[in-house]
Amino acid sequence: MLRATMTVLAKTSAELSSESVRSLYNQLIVRVKEISHLEAASGLLQWDQEVMMPPKAADSRADQVSALAGLSHGLKSAPALGSILEELEKRQAIQDLSADLNPFEIANIRLSRKAIKDATSLPSELVKTIAALNSKSCNAWAEARKESNFAKFAPFLEEQIRTLREKVSYQMKAGICEEARKINEKARVSLGLKDDEKCYKGYYQALIDEYEPGFKEDRLQLLFNDLKKNIVPLIAKIKAKNFQHDNSFLQGDFDVAKQTAYSHRIAKEIGFDTDAGRLDVSTHPFTGGPHPTDVRMTTRYTANYMMEGLTSTIHETGHSLYEQGRNPEYYDTPVSQALSLGVHESQSLLWERMVGLSRQFWTYALPLLKEQFQEPSHQNLQAASAEQMYKAFNRVDPGFIRVEADEVTYPLHIILRYEIEKSLVEGDITVAEIPNLWNAKMKEYLGLDVTEDRLGCLQDTHWAFGLIGYFPTYTLGSIYAVQIFGAAKEAIPNLDEHLTKGEFHVLKKWLNENIHKQGSLRESGDDLIHHLTGKSLDSSLYVQYLTAKYTEIYDL
Amino acid sequence: MLRATMTVLAKTSAELSSESVRSLYNQLIVRVKEISHLEAASGLLQWDQEVMMPPKAADSRADQVSALAGLSHGLKSAPALGSILEELEKRQAIQDLSADLNPFEIANIRLSRKAIKDATSLPSELVKTIAALNSKSCNAWAEARKESNFAKFAPFLEEQIRTLREKVSYQMKAGICEEARKINEKARVSLGLKDDEKCYKGYYQALIDEYEPGFKEDRLQLLFNDLKKNIVPLIAKIKAKNFQHDNSFLQGDFDVAKQTAYSHRIAKEIGFDTDAGRLDVSTHPFTGGPHPTDVRMTTRYTANYMMEGLTSTIHETGHSLYEQGRNPEYYDTPVSQALSLGVHESQSLLWERMVGLSRQFWTYALPLLKEQFQEPSHQNLQAASAEQMYKAFNRVDPGFIRVEADEVTYPLHIILRYEIEKSLVEGDITVAEIPNLWNAKMKEYLGLDVTEDRLGCLQDTHWAFGLIGYFPTYTLGSIYAVQIFGAAKEAIPNLDEHLTKGEFHVLKKWLNENIHKQGSLRESGDDLIHHLTGKSLDSSLYVQYLTAKYTEIYDL
Repeated sequence: MLRATMTVLAKTSAELSSESVRSLYNQLIVRVKEISHLEAASGLLQWDQEVMMPPKAADSRADQVSALAGLSHGLKSAPALGSILEELEKRQAIQDLSADLNPFEIANIRLSRKAIKDATSLPSELVKTIAALNSKSCNAWAEARKESNFAKFAPFLEEQIRTLREKVSYQMKAGICEEARKINEKARVSLGLKDDEKCYKGYYQALIDEYEPGFKEDRLQLLFNDLKKNIVPLIAKIKAKNFQHDNSFLQGDFDVAKQTAYSHRIAKEIGFDTDAGRLDVSTHPFTGGPHPTDVRMTTRYTANYMMEGLTSTIHETGHSLYEQGRNPEYYDTPVSQALSLGVHESQSLLWERMVGLSRQFWTYALPLLKEQFQEPSHQNLQAASAEQMYKAFNRVDPGFIRVEADEVTYPLHIILRYEIEKSLVEGDITVAEIPNLWNAKMKEYLGLDVTEDRLGCLQDTHWAFGLIGYFPTYTLGSIYAVQIFGAAKEAIPNLDEHLTKGEFHVLKKWLNENIHKQGSLRESGDDLIHHLTGKSLDSSLYVQYLTAKYTEIYDL
Repeated sequence: MLRATMTVLAKTSAELSSESVRSLYNQLIVRVKEISHLEAASGLLQWDQEVMMPPKAADSRADQVSALAGLSHGLKSAPALGSILEELEKRQAIQDLSADLNPFEIANIRLSRKAIKDATSLPSELVKTIAALNSKSCNAWAEARKESNFAKFAPFLEEQIRTLREKVSYQMKAGICEEARKINEKARVSLGLKDDEKCYKGYYQALIDEYEPGFKEDRLQLLFNDLKKNIVPLIAKIKAKNFQHDNSFLQGDFDVAKQTAYSHRIAKEIGFDTDAGRLDVSTHPFTGGPHPTDVRMTTRYTANYMMEGLTSTIHETGHSLYEQGRNPEYYDTPVSQALSLGVHESQSLLWERMVGLSRQFWTYALPLLKEQFQEPSHQNLQAASAEQMYKAFNRVDPGFIRVEADEVTYPLHIILRYEIEKSLVEGDITVAEIPNLWNAKMKEYLGLDVTEDRLGCLQDTHWAFGLIGYFPTYTLGSIYAVQIFGAAKEAIPNLDEHLTKGEFHVLKKWLNENIHKQGSLRESGDDLIHHLTGKSLDSSLYVQYLTAKYTEIYDL
């Protein structure tokens, strides 16, 4: 089947300059959609790889994914697309496009330009180097982690840092990360560096930009300092109580088939549309898939601990509602995409924490859970109250592992990683110093003595994939979540009552309108929050939320 | 991730003419593999659509599949690829390529040339028309079938015929179906037609070529005449016995989970590699997926009739072994692909019939079946002998529906369709005449009175998809299967004994070497059979097989 795009021939600049803005925009969109369809196919291949693919297909799948990536790069680099964007840029410089296009359409021009620049800023040799490095580095990390031997992973991490710096240098030259370039220039001047002297100040800013576009590193630093200053003493207070809430009724033998049925039910009740998506199982839960009409999320179940499967499901449902809630009018164009990783995470955390960890939720969900698990072995569960569930699900318990952390200690796991990775990229510390630094910070922030790197600096896969600048989005997400939920509570009369009755559609609808459908219309998460609440992202609101909630739970 | 191919720049003819055959071949293969990776991705999308996809994704999936098809067409039409093939064609005309390339590699040149010609012979407008028509026509057929109202489907079938003729005309012009063109020319001369007078003789030959390359229509006619002449009286003889074997122990409540376990076990025992494929469930069983290392087959289970799920599984396992058995040295190139639909069907039918319907198989498989179904309700099954199973699975029972037909009546279902579709394409009958003609032939061949078109000419989806010339491959497959199994029996000492013990790997290995690994090395199925057995495809061997087997089963 041939596509309409096949007949869209490249036009000369002269031809383009005589066309209307609307016509130029339409031509842009035809090409953008073709790229989107291709990347959607890639999204399905990647979902399948995690959920369905048999092991011997690893190599052939890599070939397929890589072929699609090559073709997508080819479409993005097409001179004809570049010419259309250039012409639109020219128009934008001399006229107000809003006479011809609505704000979503104007955003599509900005976002397409950025995506094309991103895709074409790197030499293909470097792109291949990165792909090969990620694959090797990831294997090395897996082995190093198994043996708890950081030295095995260290050379690969060093190579990742070198490569990321090279990448950022190219991006700076291409004018992609202006903020980062300015920081770097300023530092060079203040340090009195010569042209051939290296300086990596500002490089972390460039990495943040990839995951949380438009978010400035000095703001991040302030937010994280404030969190650290307030959360470390909060944890100390909780610890000092020397008391823990009972959660024994959440342990025992929870039949996986029944957990599955329960999780599916909760996901559907929250609003996951199973006619436009699937919930399956994978080693690491994630939300992906090809399209807003086909959102694939996964979870994982542990037979002897029912909390994991359920919270993963609710978390991924939050991500999925964002994806399913994208604006159909702009499907397959960038403005319909999520604004940033942080905002995406805010949607999963809002449902996981603000809803799934609430008294209201358990008042509704506990009877359904009891219905599912009626065996004599679950008599403790049968006897538990919603209040007990609330407290069991909200235990604060400092531990080594980030993905198992509660919402109080979680930000410190992130801040620790942020501090280390930023210093690393900017050249203030070496890779060899990581384990000691990590362990010292774990002691300082959470009072824990790390005994093996497996439980410390080798626990996460992110660095092995070159994902540096990514961790902060988890905590930005928590702060966004608190502020967004606050706005929802103000806007929706009797929200608590609705949640108690399991009437989640009220909240979902509000999020659909105010977050999901907005897509990437705004320029940053800060922008979105400001537009919604009249305030920028504010760590003190998050601190207030934690303090109030846990003061009550632990009677501080 | 960028691919190596991105850096393979187009070269001028002058540059190409100074390169070695080996270098030209390598450049061809790089491009061919890129197309293969893309089509593999498409294969996964299509599998997912049938097995996993949620309903609301229908439109977005169509966009994705269509985008990949467009890109694939773009790669196939690339002038650089055309130049490489042209240069290789030039070389082939003046030198013996076998000094530089092995027979598989030489076949790759032939097959690539054909694939490129096929893909580029049609104007893109026509390709779009066909895609749109298939979609509309398929919907119309589904409705017509539901209402048993042929008139609703008739205009779409007429349009299909018109479009197919247009397609063949383009292909004849492009020199794709020389045999068909010759037949047409000869007919025009013998009928004394003028240039502007229409004549569709030979058009059916062109359609056969798509599914069974190199197979000539006069041979097909002879084979089918011979089958009809012999099978109609064989059925009459069986009917005259007025006796039926008991199969009541195959009915009743067969738990689907247990059927699934049994089917998976049998598929694995036969040799399906679950590390390089999956067995799932879909409405219509099929074998597909992206790659020989990732073969996706499906089956379907009926709770009250265990024969269906099992025979579908064995049938699809036969297809899958072909796919998994492709030559790894030539993965992602056309020579590793199956030779034809008929040969592919021979592999599914060989396992389904020669093995799955044999006494040997049931001697092995019945105890495993009894292990699975031990409920008191299955006491008849528990009491059944391998001999009874053999007879129950080999009942001859003329019926209206092709997909439910036994191996004796099946060829008549095909011959009926073949006769009708050939006359239709060549203009000897009109669409309106189909129902009467169908019903008359059903009466003549199987002695049945068709009461509704739903049970007659509306039962199959093929024509609605424009699949004309496809049906004969089912019966060619049965004949191939008998001859291939005959050759295997000659080559493998004690094959029957191996099958009785469930030692299927002996047969699988022989098929791997002699059929699967050979891929598309030979020019036609006839060629392959001749090479293997010293004989061409021979309907009398099939007749002998049926006659001997059913004379014994029905004591004729």
